[in-house]
Amino acid sequence: MSLVRVHNFSISLDGFGTGESQQLDAPFGHAGQQLVQWAFGTRTFRTMGFPGESEGSFGVDEAFASTWGPGIGVEIMGRNKFGPQRGPWEDHEWKGWWGENPPFHTPVVVLTHHPRPVLEMEGGTTFHFVDADPVAALEKARTLAGDRDIRIGGGVSTVRQFLETDLIDHMHIVIVPIVLGRGDRLWDGLEGLEQRFDIEATPSPQGVLHLVFTRRTVQ
Amino acid sequence: MSLVRVHNFSISLDGFGTGESQQLDAPFGHAGQQLVQWAFGTRTFRTMGFPGESEGSFGVDEAFASTWGPGIGVEIMGRNKFGPQRGPWEDHEWKGWWGENPPFHTPVVVLTHHPRPVLEMEGGTTFHFVDADPVAALEKARTLAGDRDIRIGGGVSTVRQFLETDLIDHMHIVIVPIVLGRGDRLWDGLEGLEQRFDIEATPSPQGVLHLVFTRRTVQ
Repeated sequence: MSLVRVHNFSISLDGFGTGESQQLDAPFGHAGQQLVQWAFGTRTFRTMGFPGESEGSFGVDEAFASTWGPGIGVEIMGRNKFGPQRGPWEDHEWKGWWGENPPFHTPVVVLTHHPRPVLEMEGGTTFHFVDADPVAALEKARTLAGDRDIRIGGGVSTVRQFLETDLIDHMHIVIVPIVLGRGDRLWDGLEGLEQRFDIEATPSPQGVLHLVFTRRTVQ
Repeated sequence: MSLVRVHNFSISLDGFGTGESQQLDAPFGHAGQQLVQWAFGTRTFRTMGFPGESEGSFGVDEAFASTWGPGIGVEIMGRNKFGPQRGPWEDHEWKGWWGENPPFHTPVVVLTHHPRPVLEMEGGTTFHFVDADPVAALEKARTLAGDRDIRIGGGVSTVRQFLETDLIDHMHIVIVPIVLGRGDRLWDGLEGLEQRFDIEATPSPQGVLHLVFTRRTVQ
């Protein structure tokens, strides 16, 4: 059975996966780039097109960042990750934050209550807009992924919903040592989550903490 | 100038320093011993009288735990750390959770709106009940501590108040990988705290994370 995986998902010390007031020029709201800055210097993110001065690092941050892609057949993302609009689509001009050639290179299931035709991008990324709960969305994703794994790409409420329904097998969370104060909290409603996972922690010289959650095999 | 320090202060992944429903037989409420279990196996906590089977460990957990005592001249604690009672003292029988010989061996300032005579215990611990804000409490503590350091002993709201007023120089926080869901959150109201501190993280083989906050020198 293919795995359901979360990668490179950053939260603040106080558990916020995004700040308040997401906008076109601020995908993480008032958090700015603080939550994702650790990743921008890695080889993996440089290769995805994130700007930077070097060719990218190969330390522990890269080691974790690079597990993002291999084996993945499809990503599931919430509509808030796809864009800042809410409610019915006013037009179909918005094609995500990532330009004409998004870094996914696989089908991407975008969860939304508002249908829209399949959107084919360059480089193998196709956005499928689906109105479904996590179980049904995963079923749809599996038909697109074949025997490869499914990545839950966020945002916060999407990851939380998949955790609530116990659909996640592997989860890589990065704690960034900042106190955001406002935004969407990852852990809300997940009391006792640790009983379902083995958890391993690794600090990075950059100051972030990589946590790896591995779902325990049911005995 | 003596330092103001926090040591061995444990929080959950979702930032709770204690659970809900503190009671006589449950100082941490529904959290039980989950937040402090990491410390019980250390030499320092065994020496304090916490029960256990071995003589105590000397690994990284002990290395951090043991920094609790040296150089400290007084502890400041909130009333909720002293005991489960609320409101005016109904009697003076309650002398804390720690028995006749508490592990502090210094004066302890207990913050409370309800005065009570100084309480002298065995082994050098004296409880001083003081109705004061953080600045005034610290002033009182310095008169008791001489040139030694002040430890802020908790609970959550006490540490938070001292952080809000920027009175803490050194802080050792232990993140325990559990999701508590309910209780008192340490980080509430502290947005941007990281701008005042350098933060270092060290994982323990037991699975907890030791964070050390060092206040930046004002330039």
